[in-house]
Amino acid sequence: MTQAELKAKIEMQMSSLDANDWLLLVNNNQHADIVEELEQFSAEKTAALLIKLPNPELASLFGYFSPSYQDELLQAIDETEQLRLFKAMARDERVDVYQRLPEEEQKGILPKLAKQEQEDILQLASYADGTVGAVVTSAYVAIPENMTVIEALRYVRKNAAEMETIYQVYVVDKQQRLIGTMSLRELMTEKDDATVSEVMRTDLVSVSAEQPQQDAADAIRRYDLLSLPVTNGGNKLIGIVTVDDAMDVDVVESTEDFHKGGGTLALKDVSLREVSTWTMFAKRAPWLIILVFANMFSGGVIESYEDTILTYVALVFFLPLLVDSGGNAGAQASTLMVRALATGDLHLKDWLKTLGREFWVALLLGIAMAIAVYGLGVYRGGTDIALVVSISMVAVVFAGSMIGMSLPFLLSRLKLDPATASAPLITSIADFVGVLLYFYIAVTILGGSGA
Amino acid sequence: MTQAELKAKIEMQMSSLDANDWLLLVNNNQHADIVEELEQFSAEKTAALLIKLPNPELASLFGYFSPSYQDELLQAIDETEQLRLFKAMARDERVDVYQRLPEEEQKGILPKLAKQEQEDILQLASYADGTVGAVVTSAYVAIPENMTVIEALRYVRKNAAEMETIYQVYVVDKQQRLIGTMSLRELMTEKDDATVSEVMRTDLVSVSAEQPQQDAADAIRRYDLLSLPVTNGGNKLIGIVTVDDAMDVDVVESTEDFHKGGGTLALKDVSLREVSTWTMFAKRAPWLIILVFANMFSGGVIESYEDTILTYVALVFFLPLLVDSGGNAGAQASTLMVRALATGDLHLKDWLKTLGREFWVALLLGIAMAIAVYGLGVYRGGTDIALVVSISMVAVVFAGSMIGMSLPFLLSRLKLDPATASAPLITSIADFVGVLLYFYIAVTILGGSGA
Repeated sequence: MTQAELKAKIEMQMSSLDANDWLLLVNNNQHADIVEELEQFSAEKTAALLIKLPNPELASLFGYFSPSYQDELLQAIDETEQLRLFKAMARDERVDVYQRLPEEEQKGILPKLAKQEQEDILQLASYADGTVGAVVTSAYVAIPENMTVIEALRYVRKNAAEMETIYQVYVVDKQQRLIGTMSLRELMTEKDDATVSEVMRTDLVSVSAEQPQQDAADAIRRYDLLSLPVTNGGNKLIGIVTVDDAMDVDVVESTEDFHKGGGTLALKDVSLREVSTWTMFAKRAPWLIILVFANMFSGGVIESYEDTILTYVALVFFLPLLVDSGGNAGAQASTLMVRALATGDLHLKDWLKTLGREFWVALLLGIAMAIAVYGLGVYRGGTDIALVVSISMVAVVFAGSMIGMSLPFLLSRLKLDPATASAPLITSIADFVGVLLYFYIAVTILGGSGA
Repeated sequence: MTQAELKAKIEMQMSSLDANDWLLLVNNNQHADIVEELEQFSAEKTAALLIKLPNPELASLFGYFSPSYQDELLQAIDETEQLRLFKAMARDERVDVYQRLPEEEQKGILPKLAKQEQEDILQLASYADGTVGAVVTSAYVAIPENMTVIEALRYVRKNAAEMETIYQVYVVDKQQRLIGTMSLRELMTEKDDATVSEVMRTDLVSVSAEQPQQDAADAIRRYDLLSLPVTNGGNKLIGIVTVDDAMDVDVVESTEDFHKGGGTLALKDVSLREVSTWTMFAKRAPWLIILVFANMFSGGVIESYEDTILTYVALVFFLPLLVDSGGNAGAQASTLMVRALATGDLHLKDWLKTLGREFWVALLLGIAMAIAVYGLGVYRGGTDIALVVSISMVAVVFAGSMIGMSLPFLLSRLKLDPATASAPLITSIADFVGVLLYFYIAVTILGGSGA
């Protein structure tokens, strides 16, 4: 079915509300596609359709809505349906929804759930935003070490419906400590009567619930895992992170780094389709305003060379180019470094080697740009000006590149996020260094006096 | 075992070369960790250890080395070992290695492989770089539609060892056309004697081998898949893309967008640890040099206002700030848009709505910065200059933002990569527009004449 056909069918359902037809439609189409269409309607209309569905389909569809639409849906259904939804949902999604509820409603709904569900929600809700704990699910297969392979397979089969994944099982001791793991594939190819503890893998990769989410995504990518066990301080298994959640983490974290690199503060969990004018302003203004204050210094430098400018006004023609060149070369270098540090391609210890190469790259870039600008310099200001502009270009591009390259390492060293080395920050620094170098070189070559 | 312990053990192996101990070490540790340590040694030393391993371990370890180290390893082993490796490797990795071989060696090795292996390599090698075909693997489970569930489970179990994944099986008709799919979990929970065609899912998601890799990663992320079937033109199933490859695609493509945003041309398959000075220069120079040529226009504009500058030299103090502010506000907007288009958060059709919001955000940003700069303007040049600078700030930030926001949409509309709207490009445009607005506003308020 094409997306357009799906849309037409859903519209029909909106008016007919035939529970059987609707269930058939839901079972025969991708839930992500169905939700994309449902989100075009009001939450009330969508809710009327959703509550016609049995638990598994209800829970699965609900998980695909955007957080803000999920919240609207919850408000559009009555408490009985809210409870049914809460019981059916994937546990990692359930706790997210719960945490976004107003405190009053949290207190209303919690006591109505089963004790085990309450505990599950409260435990998962205790982890800070951005930590592994906030994407962990407790619906994983854990088996005791003394089970046989065939017993384990039967256990998996019996519990398959409730689990987030059954393709990796985790072996625990009596204290619920993680001691081994087996993939379903390994279980299926081992002898039926082997004891799990004899055939399990013990080269475990795990993360603790307090680590940043990116650590979990990195481990899953590095070791090609389908799920990653999550432990608390005492190596006690508390849940798993699945590869589909890890993919989402990768995208969210990359997006955050993108935004930071462009000089926008992190937009958490917000779609650009929905974000308000005011939020957008608040996230973008800070770095731009810092740029204005940085001008106190670079403007001051220019002022101190007022006489030079009045004598050689042609210098002004190249001023924007020179400060931009330093800023852009610096932004190139910092972008490369920030990304390489984020993906693990570079580490702190690579700083010196990378600096060594950047030295030559920056010099070559400066020389290439100096050659490119020389002709322009002669044309607009004569050979003297051309010489000043060309030498300044080498100096400015070189300085900008070295700063842009080193800043992310420095921030990383100080345990700060290297992505803070944003374009506006680099620009501000490059402006100041650029005008300083430019006018110093101008006065040296052309004569006259500066500050 | 910690990474340091692992390192010590591997160093011991390097001198003892005890095949049994070494196999034990390999089987009890994560292959990604082992390879990280092995890559510190020369390819000759590592090769001597690798060839002691049986086929499955040899192939698995080999897959974790970087492409350039893989190539060195191949040169360090004799032809018999090369052939063993080629037969054992994962099919999607094998074709990558094959394609990087010099043509002569390709011709040497191909005829020595089994006929089916030759065909597999030649088919996979026929897909262009960057397409789904280049990450597809043919080691997937395909079952005929008339099999029963229990037969299918037996078939999966028998063939598990050779397959990239067994957790999703694909149902094909006699012409090898894809007609359905079942997860292993579904197979395990259906009745044993049910016919697969009766219980399979028919809401298929697939991509064609010619589509860009990002399409495959997007589909896997959107539909939470473990593997995605790949078809040729005639809906014939030719392979699958697995979720671990999709995660890598996501990271590689994001990195490319990062680099482009910073004004660096795409660095394909290259680690920043290894890239040469010359490559780095070649990838960074183009956009910077374009910046120089763009100055022909903005420098020309400034030149035409020479008299104004000589009369009101204080205008020069704010010139870097104004062009930078436009450029940075523009880079913020374009970064947000490029990323949102890449992740599918925004689509082309959202342009008008997004433009509407950007109108207000840009205006607010401009006003905030105008207020911030006004005091500085009074201090350095008096109230008239302050007025010129403030009004210019609003105009420049507004213009920069609107350009930065629209350019990615425009590029996308023209079927070009929106990530081409890089910081240097936005800066070049903002420079020109910025000086034009600034001096026009200056002449209007202060009097005097321009071009």
